[in-house]
Amino acid sequence: MSAPLTGHTVRVLVGAEPKRVLTREVPEVRVSLEGVVGDRHAGLTRKADVRTPWFPRGALVRNSRQVSLVSTEELALIASALEVLRVQASWLGANLELSGVPRLTRLPPGTRLFFPEDAVLMMEGENTPCRKAGRAVEPFYPERQALASRFVKAAHQRRGLVGWVERPGLIRPGDAVRVLLPPPVTYSLP
Amino acid sequence: MSAPLTGHTVRVLVGAEPKRVLTREVPEVRVSLEGVVGDRHAGLTRKADVRTPWFPRGALVRNSRQVSLVSTEELALIASALEVLRVQASWLGANLELSGVPRLTRLPPGTRLFFPEDAVLMMEGENTPCRKAGRAVEPFYPERQALASRFVKAAHQRRGLVGWVERPGLIRPGDAVRVLLPPPVTYSLP
Repeated sequence: MSAPLTGHTVRVLVGAEPKRVLTREVPEVRVSLEGVVGDRHAGLTRKADVRTPWFPRGALVRNSRQVSLVSTEELALIASALEVLRVQASWLGANLELSGVPRLTRLPPGTRLFFPEDAVLMMEGENTPCRKAGRAVEPFYPERQALASRFVKAAHQRRGLVGWVERPGLIRPGDAVRVLLPPPVTYSLP
Repeated sequence: MSAPLTGHTVRVLVGAEPKRVLTREVPEVRVSLEGVVGDRHAGLTRKADVRTPWFPRGALVRNSRQVSLVSTEELALIASALEVLRVQASWLGANLELSGVPRLTRLPPGTRLFFPEDAVLMMEGENTPCRKAGRAVEPFYPERQALASRFVKAAHQRRGLVGWVERPGLIRPGDAVRVLLPPPVTYSLP
């Protein structure tokens, strides 16, 4: 084990409206085994969609995409690649913005994030950037061309992670985050 | 993508008794989002124990250890290392015995197993061998010494996997299994 990997919570957000990407900053979020309480992605199950092509579309499966996380540093890199002043966590529908964890988006599936008030989040994997998230950025820079399509490349390996709640609790801005990587496993055929 | 990784289901088992390791072979198992219906490890939550030292003991966390899987080939290797005739899936409390998937225990976390009647299982990781499982083997070879403690080494990287149900369904002996490995991710500090 090397030095512990840590960061801190910059802001916490909830997306209450069913059809909108946008989330809204709040003073704290409660996470249950269903996800962020009050968020549109909360639920023990979800319907399989384009992100899970191995299931029939619409099949009810366990929800491993309850929570969306981005990092301050990676948002700045996306903004820089798009040549805009900033890209905000709320525009991308994130529930948590963290800072200080290097290459947040590259944390492997199975990584756990520990928060001081009990909450533990398990990372499912990278949130691959799509044009829908890109379109959510466009209204903030109406003078810029083709932001939605440029977003996919600009946000490559920077758009953050999705995951699920492993242990319920509270998360607030300023909370320290401790990162526990899973044991590395390499599978090769004999 | 190389050739698809496949195997088949040799037997399915349920452990109905709360305190016993042993499982019992049945003609089919139904898996729900809680796990194997009727099995003592089923449930959306579990209490944190010695296997999850990063939680306070007894904390209620999401149950990712609903289902236990072993492979015919690895059971034979364990038996050979213990110098006994056989080690049965039921003795180790497994819910599924698969055959034909090379190095089952080494499949990485995030691996999905697809069964023909809808069921999809997500692998959480290796089921590290413990003396408790070893003690469950002892009664079948009363003349052999120290099987429980030798089991831990004999079953190293051979004791199978645990995981959770991602999609409900039915699983029966003879069912084909399709294995989908997760995308490999390497995390390194900048």
